Amino acid sequence: MANKKITSRDVDFAQWYTDVVNAAHLSSYSNVKGCIILEPNGYAIWEKMQQTLDKMFKETGHRNVAMPMLIPENLMKKEGELINGFAPEVAWVTMGGNKQLEERMCVRPTSETLFSDYYSTVVKSYRDLPLKYNQWCSVMRWEKETRPFLRSREFWWQEGHTVHATQAEAEAETRNMLGVYEKFFREYLAIPAITGRKTEKEKFAGADYTLTIEALMYNGISLQSGTSHYFGQKFAKAYDIKFLNKNNDWEYAYQTSWGVSSRMIGALIMVHSDDDGLVLPPNIAPTQIRIVPISMDENILKIAKEYETQLKNAGYSVDTDTTDRSAGFKFAEAEVLGVPLRIEIGNRDLQNGVVTLARRDTKEKIQVSKKEDIVKSCTTLLKTIQSDMLEKATKRRDEKTYTATTLAEFEKIMNTHPGFVKADWCGNPECETRIKEIRGTKSRCILEHEKPLTGKCVVCGKHADNLVVWGIQY
Amino acid sequence: MANKKITSRDVDFAQWYTDVVNAAHLSSYSNVKGCIILEPNGYAIWEKMQQTLDKMFKETGHRNVAMPMLIPENLMKKEGELINGFAPEVAWVTMGGNKQLEERMCVRPTSETLFSDYYSTVVKSYRDLPLKYNQWCSVMRWEKETRPFLRSREFWWQEGHTVHATQAEAEAETRNMLGVYEKFFREYLAIPAITGRKTEKEKFAGADYTLTIEALMYNGISLQSGTSHYFGQKFAKAYDIKFLNKNNDWEYAYQTSWGVSSRMIGALIMVHSDDDGLVLPPNIAPTQIRIVPISMDENILKIAKEYETQLKNAGYSVDTDTTDRSAGFKFAEAEVLGVPLRIEIGNRDLQNGVVTLARRDTKEKIQVSKKEDIVKSCTTLLKTIQSDMLEKATKRRDEKTYTATTLAEFEKIMNTHPGFVKADWCGNPECETRIKEIRGTKSRCILEHEKPLTGKCVVCGKHADNLVVWGIQY
Repeated sequence: MANKKITSRDVDFAQWYTDVVNAAHLSSYSNVKGCIILEPNGYAIWEKMQQTLDKMFKETGHRNVAMPMLIPENLMKKEGELINGFAPEVAWVTMGGNKQLEERMCVRPTSETLFSDYYSTVVKSYRDLPLKYNQWCSVMRWEKETRPFLRSREFWWQEGHTVHATQAEAEAETRNMLGVYEKFFREYLAIPAITGRKTEKEKFAGADYTLTIEALMYNGISLQSGTSHYFGQKFAKAYDIKFLNKNNDWEYAYQTSWGVSSRMIGALIMVHSDDDGLVLPPNIAPTQIRIVPISMDENILKIAKEYETQLKNAGYSVDTDTTDRSAGFKFAEAEVLGVPLRIEIGNRDLQNGVVTLARRDTKEKIQVSKKEDIVKSCTTLLKTIQSDMLEKATKRRDEKTYTATTLAEFEKIMNTHPGFVKADWCGNPECETRIKEIRGTKSRCILEHEKPLTGKCVVCGKHADNLVVWGIQY
Repeated sequence: MANKKITSRDVDFAQWYTDVVNAAHLSSYSNVKGCIILEPNGYAIWEKMQQTLDKMFKETGHRNVAMPMLIPENLMKKEGELINGFAPEVAWVTMGGNKQLEERMCVRPTSETLFSDYYSTVVKSYRDLPLKYNQWCSVMRWEKETRPFLRSREFWWQEGHTVHATQAEAEAETRNMLGVYEKFFREYLAIPAITGRKTEKEKFAGADYTLTIEALMYNGISLQSGTSHYFGQKFAKAYDIKFLNKNNDWEYAYQTSWGVSSRMIGALIMVHSDDDGLVLPPNIAPTQIRIVPISMDENILKIAKEYETQLKNAGYSVDTDTTDRSAGFKFAEAEVLGVPLRIEIGNRDLQNGVVTLARRDTKEKIQVSKKEDIVKSCTTLLKTIQSDMLEKATKRRDEKTYTATTLAEFEKIMNTHPGFVKADWCGNPECETRIKEIRGTKSRCILEHEKPLTGKCVVCGKHADNLVVWGIQY
């Protein structure tokens, strides 16, 4: 039973995306141009992402802090590349109360400057290092075109900022945090992302290099989903973060930063969801199980209550729909909201000694004996749903991952059935620019552990050391 | 063993406060004027407050959302009193990228306007109501004088915003949320706050009335610690939030808002802490127990490890100080950070078959038999610490709560030993203004369940229906 409000994703993907966001009440446009409102259903997903990641960050030795949301212009300007990268897209506060400010301040687009300024005051000795801090906040970038979750002027994210005594340690941090993201995407979001290094053109302003996690959407479009930057001593030199090393010499510190954002909600939608609405992997769904009594008979409600209690005690997030609407309406609503597992309790089933478990991902209905332990049945099924969703997404990603050894081949793929295209690249930015002419295709990342296909650049034919994944991006 | 860096609170309370904030590394000034940085130790307390309150909010049927951080001027202006109240103290964004904005926007000082605007788009029928939403964020008010946690241009808070179909329900919400705050202060912060209604002069701009929770600091100064506002239909009329009621008539909705902030960290410091640093109640302390091995002997470390595991499994937040510093240094550090309970494990004690539990609040050391269950001992002691801290704070508050029936008496109290002063008030704002001449004393709140002392206004002698608590405020 397709939800009438939702356009088919195979007919008009962009409209389908908007329809799913609206139908599931994830976010709403506000009267603040380019800014969205995270409605309760959308915020609940973000909250679950935050809780999960926060635990992973803490387990890897990070602590949370909060920096100011404003950055004075001169502080922002200390590191030249960063301000050049962000200047065209920051919001400037020029007045406080009724007074013109002596120095304007921008609403943070990212907080390298503030963290670096702070680190310069607290780092004195190698004994103080490393400092591994993270911040949950919103940031602002004055984008022209906006789209819920994918691109909006304000978005919600975490930004980790760390400072280390050695290059090796900072580089390991950069890589480890990319690993945390990859694991989070795989184990929680059921999204098989690819990881690698950004080209010089695509790296973060001010970074020595940027590692990235890239996901492929249902329609073959790529989404940059998280980045981890190694800064070397660049910010340390600009902000004077020096420490006495073990040899008692002054040395500039080594830094990293890494972040993922509410954009991940967009990825969840575009990887897993369907024409009936949201589909959420059990490990990230705010409501994992919804119990639907088919009628409001006392014995049915009693079983519903028992199940709810048992499942809650087992640690699941579960609710029961006791509203007076029809069963069909309730099923459709649970589906549009992406609740991974539905337990339907009806009299006919009960007479046969069974209840029905309905999977959101496959729509499959499974009857289980009333005598079975409901917690056990749900645990097994939720695990299956989680792994099946990852498997399905992996299969689709692999099907949409192509190789190209000629530009003609490359163009044909992108023009007919876009996806990830693996192709050799010589390292010349001009060849990257040439590829951009193909529907705006950009390099997603250089695969660090794979060898070039032919060793010749797909554009110029010269010697190529890099196997690059390319894609059209959001 | 007093920490040398900390000024005595009986010598210079303001300096003592600053010293405790610095010594415990709670916050730091930033190079953004008037804005502070929440350092890891300070943020950890805020995080614990958030988690605890968030659970209480959810248990009372609230859901989280996120609104934009900017408010266009015309949206802000729709409700006249609110903009008049906040205009002198908002930060204005006037440029986006390199372009002047057509309409300037302020960084939210509070979000009634955004919530109301949103509610006007989603509320259609009484069936949509109530909507009980909350937001965790930071807000900005362009204060001139700032002080860590107590007053800074940016601060962190939660703002609940609810919309209801009836006045009775909205008023009940206003009161219930004040109750949630009062319970949180009592059971978690161990702060015996007083609650009541703000006078017209002191109520929130735009509110029908404001309920408040007020705490008394060690030095007798009052701290407004949280507020809960009933708006009636005021915002609904300004923002056009109408719904079809049960009689199928259009009716304006009834609203509330309520908030507490990172200011509560200031209250924790000024109510409980001492000349050795922070003192935290176990129920809000990020680290509840610290294990200190007196020496790094293998058998001691083994016991430490066992204890840590057992206590963690029992749900306590516990760590072990295995650094190579002296025991005395470790004790002092645990004290300055306010860790409620310390377990000291030393060879001499072990030879006697005991370990030592050290209370942060009283400095008392208690030897317990090695044979005792450590989880049981700690559970009992932490409960005792929690309740003793509340008792002590209540005793001090009561000792510093006075009554005055004449202005002379009132002035004498405030000039010699300030605290809460209970005195009758006729309701005339001019009498309130007269009292402000006494060291800036303001009404904290009207006590709703207590009768006037004499029935005559302490200022003008006219008939008085209100028993008011007055205080000098932060």
